[in-house]
Amino acid sequence: MNINKISERLQNFVELRDWAKFHTPKNLVMALAVEASELLEIFQWLTEEESKEIVKDEKNIKLIREEIADVLIYLIYLADKFQIDLEEAVYEKIKTNEGKYPIEIFKGSAKKQNRL
Amino acid sequence: MNINKISERLQNFVELRDWAKFHTPKNLVMALAVEASELLEIFQWLTEEESKEIVKDEKNIKLIREEIADVLIYLIYLADKFQIDLEEAVYEKIKTNEGKYPIEIFKGSAKKQNRL
Amino acid sequence: MNINKISERLQNFVELRDWAKFHTPKNLVMALAVEASELLEIFQWLTEEESKEIVKDEKNIKLIREEIADVLIYLIYLADKFQIDLEEAVYEKIKTNEGKYPIEIFKGSAKKQNRL
Amino acid sequence: MNINKISERLQNFVELRDWAKFHTPKNLVMALAVEASELLEIFQWLTEEESKEIVKDEKNIKLIREEIADVLIYLIYLADKFQIDLEEAVYEKIKTNEGKYPIEIFKGSAKKQNRL
Repeated sequence: MNINKISERLQNFVELRDWAKFHTPKNLVMALAVEASELLEIFQWLTEEESKEIVKDEKNIKLIREEIADVLIYLIYLADKFQIDLEEAVYEKIKTNEGKYPIEIFKGSAKKQNRL
Repeated sequence: MNINKISERLQNFVELRDWAKFHTPKNLVMALAVEASELLEIFQWLTEEESKEIVKDEKNIKLIREEIADVLIYLIYLADKFQIDLEEAVYEKIKTNEGKYPIEIFKGSAKKQNRL
Repeated sequence: MNINKISERLQNFVELRDWAKFHTPKNLVMALAVEASELLEIFQWLTEEESKEIVKDEKNIKLIREEIADVLIYLIYLADKFQIDLEEAVYEKIKTNEGKYPIEIFKGSAKKQNRL
Repeated sequence: MNINKISERLQNFVELRDWAKFHTPKNLVMALAVEASELLEIFQWLTEEESKEIVKDEKNIKLIREEIADVLIYLIYLADKFQIDLEEAVYEKIKTNEGKYPIEIFKGSAKKQNRL
């Protein structure tokens, strides 16, 4: 995935509409949360079984794909804003998680990141 | 960004911990929303000015980078689950948005995607 | 529940700390979403069965009770800000929902408010 | 506000539609988060000034009132599910907050609950 190219396309989209003034960090994290929540809305009343079933309907996948794209779009805007290299950040976080959840302790455990 | 390589690393992380059983679509969208909300938490009490200022402190950026990485990690898990090509999905969505927000109507407008 | 009394106590809490300046509508809805998401975090990895089980542990209930209280607190701040009568608003919304989801169509249906 | 009476009305609404099966704790917290996020959506692109202005338009208030009612409705469902006394829970949480944020330290401070 060529993030730089996507990023340029997005910046162009914003400039043409003069929307940069709306893209404060605060507004962008709000938009990100709203988009993530639209995915939540799709799954809120489904049983676990149903949530696995819906994948078989092309129309459902289309809707999910759009919402996932929306989340990624705001993530790229935010990464640009804070000059964060997304790939680097992900690898760093995976390394942190590997240390935080040692296999011998967390294997198969429902306690995974659980607050209870 | 080599999504396939990240994806393999993430699948490996999950397998070693036997966590696949937790990764239902429903749980993954919940985790995505929780991570997006942690970004929200960082910015909730900041004024617009302050939200632009915090970028200058390396420690703040480190925290934001981690939360952004968490969102992207769950997004990649979800894309895998639904066999969605993230790059393709983003370009498709940008095209949809270009049609939905014609420049001549939305230029500089605060009505941007606004429900009010 | 005496909302006015709670509301006075909350306003007093805010005044004593000189926090009114942080309580813009925008910040309050962010705080509300963050608190709702903390409830989400508690349940994100639980199966349906487990989510029913946790109620039996007093410590879990204590944590859930705190998060639910947090959501209600921000809801009361918001209702004050917009001079909304919560009880009236709830009854109005129930009436709207009764019209929106006629029994004969929605009885037992998983399509409940579903976007799919 | 007579919570018991609202609660009875809501349980009746659910029974008539045979929706109790959808109202697992996990689904209810998802619904709560989705409704909170719909408030977020209303405010996401507004400046602080604008967020104070919109209150003057009756149509905006109507929409906000509906979303606030939705959050309260799911909160009441959840409180019922976990047999939580909302009024008691709120007073307990206010007391906790009074201890957590001593006036002499937090007066006027933007550090309020801030993770940075």
